[in-house]
Amino acid sequence: MSSDKYCFGVDIGGTTIKLAVLSTKGEIFKKWEIPTNKSQRGKHIAYDIHEAIEAARSELDIHKSNILGIGVGAPGFINTKTGFIYVAVNIGWEDYDFGNELSKLSGYPVWVDNDANLAALGENWLGAGNGAENVIAVTLGTGVGGGIIANGQIISGANGMAAEIGHMTVISNGGAPCNCGKTGCLETEASATAIVRKVKEALVTIPDSSLNKVEDLTAKDVFRAAAAHDPAANKVLTSVTDTLGLAIANLAIAVNPNKVIIGGGVSKAGDQLLNPLKETFKSYALARTFEACTFEIAELGNDAGVIGGAYLVKENL
Amino acid sequence: MSSDKYCFGVDIGGTTIKLAVLSTKGEIFKKWEIPTNKSQRGKHIAYDIHEAIEAARSELDIHKSNILGIGVGAPGFINTKTGFIYVAVNIGWEDYDFGNELSKLSGYPVWVDNDANLAALGENWLGAGNGAENVIAVTLGTGVGGGIIANGQIISGANGMAAEIGHMTVISNGGAPCNCGKTGCLETEASATAIVRKVKEALVTIPDSSLNKVEDLTAKDVFRAAAAHDPAANKVLTSVTDTLGLAIANLAIAVNPNKVIIGGGVSKAGDQLLNPLKETFKSYALARTFEACTFEIAELGNDAGVIGGAYLVKENL
Repeated sequence: MSSDKYCFGVDIGGTTIKLAVLSTKGEIFKKWEIPTNKSQRGKHIAYDIHEAIEAARSELDIHKSNILGIGVGAPGFINTKTGFIYVAVNIGWEDYDFGNELSKLSGYPVWVDNDANLAALGENWLGAGNGAENVIAVTLGTGVGGGIIANGQIISGANGMAAEIGHMTVISNGGAPCNCGKTGCLETEASATAIVRKVKEALVTIPDSSLNKVEDLTAKDVFRAAAAHDPAANKVLTSVTDTLGLAIANLAIAVNPNKVIIGGGVSKAGDQLLNPLKETFKSYALARTFEACTFEIAELGNDAGVIGGAYLVKENL
Repeated sequence: MSSDKYCFGVDIGGTTIKLAVLSTKGEIFKKWEIPTNKSQRGKHIAYDIHEAIEAARSELDIHKSNILGIGVGAPGFINTKTGFIYVAVNIGWEDYDFGNELSKLSGYPVWVDNDANLAALGENWLGAGNGAENVIAVTLGTGVGGGIIANGQIISGANGMAAEIGHMTVISNGGAPCNCGKTGCLETEASATAIVRKVKEALVTIPDSSLNKVEDLTAKDVFRAAAAHDPAANKVLTSVTDTLGLAIANLAIAVNPNKVIIGGGVSKAGDQLLNPLKETFKSYALARTFEACTFEIAELGNDAGVIGGAYLVKENL
């Protein structure tokens, strides 16, 4: 290949590791995945990534000197200055100097950040963000994750905990228990899991809901039923968008974003989610905060992480 | 004076304009104030500042080439890239290209930011922040203001509205009316004004409170009474610290600060405020978020703004 410069993006998940090779302009030359080998507390992962990258480099005929580095996302708490992993429960890592290990193995500079943060960077580079300077990205899936960009930079915080917005308290007194040990977190009120739980609770008093007949209820079923004016679905989604609009408005009052990007499985509801969400956001936000920002559905799906990884390399050079 | 380099800090308030001359190392060489001339919608202010700075420069015998620039804080919404003021209600400015005007008059580079943001920068440089990379500064006075530092930089946001944390919604359904037009804002529950209002509400049902006898009740009276176990004062301060702890914890979950700095008149209560606040913060924050940060009382008082102005110059060079 030509003498262009290339960045590797890597997104480590509990089951697979996604990889991609991008130019600094954002062209994707190769995208693939390998299994996550979690044996022996994930000690083989760095080598597996090194091998996968070397094979791709050779296949694409890229000279080593044209590789700018590797940007890696991992699901955990990370010292983004050093690439040191405090803990990544799903992978088995704890107090692991991953960034330095991968850098030594590969010979390239390595940057590491939280996977949700990299997804936000990726969406902002090549997806819905369109290069905004100030972004709140919210991922509504099994849980609620997020990434915050301020002054054009991802916020990582004092110990890699920034933008854990699923754990903002939205019910101060009680609420459902959260995996984090607290109660009433945003995740317990606005994730796909929460939507299903809240519908099941609502069905007890709404026997004529069509959802009473659905087995293995999903958030998708709830949005479909709401579109057909199902009372239980409407009741729950009204409550969910109100809570989510409040939480995002409170974040926006702090960050003053140009863009709010909603991703994750629940975001597939599109305007059915965005329209009421914008309304509740507007009611809780300051007028100038509301005027400054637009709402977007994430565009890159599962590719956001590897694209964000490549951006991390580009940004740090 | 020697050939050191100097920064001017300016803090424009509704009554007075504070000014200071600092070295880049943070030594304060002169600190003074002039009245704010609000006649003709504040059109003379830029010239007044220029004159005051020239007089001080001459008095201190600083050569023009050793002035690095002027950092100005104003109470309003500002385009921090250009120094353009969208609106500063208390001064009378609207859509005013203040930064460029002062720069033309003085011949020095000028940077402008919101006064609360500059106070946060000042505290972080020479006060309680001790140069932390990630800071949440909260000012509890007549209202509730704030400044947020992330990755070592002040957050200004898409249209100068960042860190308006007094307007986070803490009571989603109802609550007291706020000056911003919403209800249930943090400012209506945790400012000095709110403390007094809440005590007056509580006194209706707590006739044996000592505060029933106090005329022209202030937040200071409430803290004094709480120290003497007054039931109305205790009830209100428990509610205030709970609400404040929740709001700051939600912010901290987004920003992951190393420091939370509490300033403004109410902060004079010191540990009587900080100790219960840290407890409620801990209960609403994630464990790692709590571990990463310390709480401090602001140290610079009214000087924080001019010091932050000088820092803005230093930071931008």
